[in-house]
Amino acid sequence: MRELIQYPNGIKREINNHQVAKETNFANRGMDFERAINDSNDYYLSRRIAVIHKKPTPVQVVKVDYPKRSRAKITEAYYRHASTTDYSGVYRGYYIDFEAKETKQKKSFPLKNFHPHQIEHMSRVIEQDGICFVLLYFASLDDCYLLEAKYLIPYFDCNQETRKSIPLSFIVEFGFQIEFEVKPRIPFLKVVDGLIKGGKENS
Amino acid sequence: MRELIQYPNGIKREINNHQVAKETNFANRGMDFERAINDSNDYYLSRRIAVIHKKPTPVQVVKVDYPKRSRAKITEAYYRHASTTDYSGVYRGYYIDFEAKETKQKKSFPLKNFHPHQIEHMSRVIEQDGICFVLLYFASLDDCYLLEAKYLIPYFDCNQETRKSIPLSFIVEFGFQIEFEVKPRIPFLKVVDGLIKGGKENS
Repeated sequence: MRELIQYPNGIKREINNHQVAKETNFANRGMDFERAINDSNDYYLSRRIAVIHKKPTPVQVVKVDYPKRSRAKITEAYYRHASTTDYSGVYRGYYIDFEAKETKQKKSFPLKNFHPHQIEHMSRVIEQDGICFVLLYFASLDDCYLLEAKYLIPYFDCNQETRKSIPLSFIVEFGFQIEFEVKPRIPFLKVVDGLIKGGKENS
Repeated sequence: MRELIQYPNGIKREINNHQVAKETNFANRGMDFERAINDSNDYYLSRRIAVIHKKPTPVQVVKVDYPKRSRAKITEAYYRHASTTDYSGVYRGYYIDFEAKETKQKKSFPLKNFHPHQIEHMSRVIEQDGICFVLLYFASLDDCYLLEAKYLIPYFDCNQETRKSIPLSFIVEFGFQIEFEVKPRIPFLKVVDGLIKGGKENS
């Protein structure tokens, strides 16, 4: 019982009615990586470790009906491209900002997953001393990496015309692999702890 | 040529077709306070002073059509209540988080402008050492105040059952009045500079 939903970026993602059965493994399954991140953020929030939320998908509302005695009903609207990254929040006084993307490829990560205005946003965040990165999930390998935006941005700027993707070897060299756990499922703040510590030692 | 739009929180806001004429003064005009804040954030962003964005209004999508050769069209959706504040971002390494609200009352600010889950969110942000506040606009007086969440939260928690609003005198005593300028229109980061400086002096 699956249906395909066309998302704003044109990626088709599978929705499975038997969501429960999928909870334990999110390899090869479109929405489960996002779900695993949201679960991790819920965990961090409930344990008062960090406050990180996914921004709502921006929607351009064209028509709204106001039926009597019931709530406003939007009858025509369209998805818009996000002008920022999807996730942001605060952790130990630090501003956290990231985008999460996945690919089915095994040797490289397609640059088309990122929009130029998102890259621009990441540059601005770094200028303000925010902690900014991408979480890259290789679904076929079931591997997840955290790559700081400071490595992604120059790669994107220099190569978007000529190369279409970031080689896995680049991500392995400059990024951090995240081992999955039970709680939270994607413990990315462990890597952030290292970034914070490294930043202080370097300054 | 005005029309009334019913927003999710039940507040009716006026939309004026002659938006340009309203730009210079936003007293007594519903949407202009929000616009003035957005303009201020645009200014801060364009000058590379801060990266602060309004989060998209959350929408629960129920039905989507996929017409051939055109983009996905949402045909049934509903507004949802935001679970966080409307604005967040980063400034000089600090996480900034705030909500902006206005009233036509002259002597107090109604507490019904804030939802318990927003107050809860503000508490979590403060725990993580984020800078959290509300911008309160008294439309009839054309006065704007910044009140730190640390003063709003206990007031809300203690008084939401008994009192329905925060007296202006409380806001004047514990908040900071913001004088309007041309660029940016609502220079709230001036107050934030003071909070950062004060915080460092106190620590």
